[in-house]
Amino acid sequence: MSVTAAKGFTAAGIAAGIKENGNPDLALVVNNGPRRAAAGVFTSNRVKAAPVLWSEQVLKTGELAAVVLNSGGANACTGPQGFQDTHATAEKAAEVLGVGAGEVAVASTGLIGVHLPMDKLLPGVEKAAAELSEHGGEKAAIAIKTTDTVHKTAVVSRDRWTVGGMAKGAGMLAPGLATMLVVLTTDADLDAPELDKALRAATRVTFDRVDSDGCMSTNDTVLLLASGASGTTPAYDDFADAVREVCDSLGRQLIGDAEGASKDIRVEVVNAATEADAVEVGRSIARNNLLKCAIHGEDPNWGRVLSAIGTTNAAFEPDRLNVAINGVWVCKNGSVGEDRDLVDMRYREVTITADLAAGTESAVIWTNDLTADYVHENSAYSS
Amino acid sequence: MSVTAAKGFTAAGIAAGIKENGNPDLALVVNNGPRRAAAGVFTSNRVKAAPVLWSEQVLKTGELAAVVLNSGGANACTGPQGFQDTHATAEKAAEVLGVGAGEVAVASTGLIGVHLPMDKLLPGVEKAAAELSEHGGEKAAIAIKTTDTVHKTAVVSRDRWTVGGMAKGAGMLAPGLATMLVVLTTDADLDAPELDKALRAATRVTFDRVDSDGCMSTNDTVLLLASGASGTTPAYDDFADAVREVCDSLGRQLIGDAEGASKDIRVEVVNAATEADAVEVGRSIARNNLLKCAIHGEDPNWGRVLSAIGTTNAAFEPDRLNVAINGVWVCKNGSVGEDRDLVDMRYREVTITADLAAGTESAVIWTNDLTADYVHENSAYSS
Repeated sequence: MSVTAAKGFTAAGIAAGIKENGNPDLALVVNNGPRRAAAGVFTSNRVKAAPVLWSEQVLKTGELAAVVLNSGGANACTGPQGFQDTHATAEKAAEVLGVGAGEVAVASTGLIGVHLPMDKLLPGVEKAAAELSEHGGEKAAIAIKTTDTVHKTAVVSRDRWTVGGMAKGAGMLAPGLATMLVVLTTDADLDAPELDKALRAATRVTFDRVDSDGCMSTNDTVLLLASGASGTTPAYDDFADAVREVCDSLGRQLIGDAEGASKDIRVEVVNAATEADAVEVGRSIARNNLLKCAIHGEDPNWGRVLSAIGTTNAAFEPDRLNVAINGVWVCKNGSVGEDRDLVDMRYREVTITADLAAGTESAVIWTNDLTADYVHENSAYSS
Repeated sequence: MSVTAAKGFTAAGIAAGIKENGNPDLALVVNNGPRRAAAGVFTSNRVKAAPVLWSEQVLKTGELAAVVLNSGGANACTGPQGFQDTHATAEKAAEVLGVGAGEVAVASTGLIGVHLPMDKLLPGVEKAAAELSEHGGEKAAIAIKTTDTVHKTAVVSRDRWTVGGMAKGAGMLAPGLATMLVVLTTDADLDAPELDKALRAATRVTFDRVDSDGCMSTNDTVLLLASGASGTTPAYDDFADAVREVCDSLGRQLIGDAEGASKDIRVEVVNAATEADAVEVGRSIARNNLLKCAIHGEDPNWGRVLSAIGTTNAAFEPDRLNVAINGVWVCKNGSVGEDRDLVDMRYREVTITADLAAGTESAVIWTNDLTADYVHENSAYSS
């Protein structure tokens, strides 16, 4: 279903030969209207890949007719040639689709610092355009995979309208394990400012709170395209809620497929003075390598949670902190709490609850454990 | 030689039974004067272990007669009982040495959130006092090991005075892989403010720039004790230089023995607008798990260096960044540079040079690679 669940969209996913192993590596998503409203959010990394620079620029009009996505090469740190390559990709898509290049966003993922094989990519765009279909969403989702073991899609349908989407990667807007590319589509009839507002509200509490390995990509891109093909204009809150739901599902799928992970860790920070404090503490816990190793070893090592909290500027008193792991309060008032042997960590999902005892705000950050497989996957070959 | 290289000091290292495996776990360092000037720097983690809270307090007088150090338990997150245990340790040392408890610093390392076995520790202090010797420095260095595979000592001797020291751990003041404990001694005749100034100047450019895994301990402690036994007062600059040299050697030894590491990585940031920028960029590179995995795999993956730089607030233009790995400029002007196959990464030491092309300042941060052994060591059992 993916990006073609909403009416007004066609998509395709093909093997253009960018990946040496012959796997699918090029996706095309087309908005057939009647509207072409669009919004996007991008990596906050200051070293931005050529396609990010391009897509940020074209999105200023609030309209997109199509998105070209490729795996097999990030086109990041590739200089002026890299930007020309992105431009040529958009031009080619515009030509075969009969639209303007300024209506085509481009997203790339793969190794940084390598030029794309344009002799394969440009014919691939033609081939993908020839295969566009209302049932092409799944193939598109497959074509954007890099180290992903499964493709990720999500759909939320309401009364007469739908939000669908696809994602690749195992990370977030800032930061990300591998590049995260997401395309969301809807047949709701909304204008670009509304899409932008709903998208930013959703990513702030979903992808932005998925922190697999603390590394921020040069290429992260999330796009939302609206065709208006349902002829329905939902209430903003309903629409924003549906977008958030799709982003939440895709974010959860990203963590579930993070490189080498054996545990999905839900870090809940509660009773914080501010939401920003809750996020800062959650992120600090989620990025603590020692803790992530302990969780891998099914060791409820709450001392590592406290030492992570201690590095933040959040409001708290050390001797009022409480920590639960899978519901067992192993740390009470900053000291030894319930018996750690009561903690059952056999299952893939692990919940760490950090109670700051400083207010009423909360936040959830998702991360995963740190494993030998992660090291292997990121050391055995360039990615 | 270690802490007894300087005249006026005795030390001992014994097995008190704190560690279940019977290895040495308690060290005592005594300043026999004639002076007892001292200075210290401690973890900036807001969750501080009981011995850190105690030692910070007693150092306010600028005098120390002795330091008791134990491995086998961090006495962190142990509540009021933990502070009482540290107090009792200092009282016991004071009693057997005939000094005041307020002249005794305490340092602990090991698992967080477990109470120390005081029934073993206190008799251990008596036993250590009975074994104090001018040749006890090495035994003391051995007794403070936790996951260290070797003990670490350094000595710098000048005309008529000496600075010596011992260290355990594989980390830094902020942050640290495992807790870092360091005791430095000198027979130079200096007062506490001079010691404090020299110690802070040294740690700022040595231990503070060793960043093994980005995790900050609750227990990091660096103490400098001066006996004045040489009867010599060196020029401040000479003394500060010697202290820096000893700290530099110990810091380098810490990285060389970091948990699971197979590569020692020297991250040089050059041509930064400010020293703070250089340190921020160096630390960001040093903490990038993806890059640390790549270095482990002997993969000169400079894209991961650029994406790490891009997450900082340092002054730079993305298209003016240059990166060398082991002297080969694999990235020039933010894009593809010399052939990455020219990079020889077979040796343990790897140098990453990041040229920000934004000024004249520089800094060096030391880190190590991320390995499956690190994961194993930190997941297979609590530490």
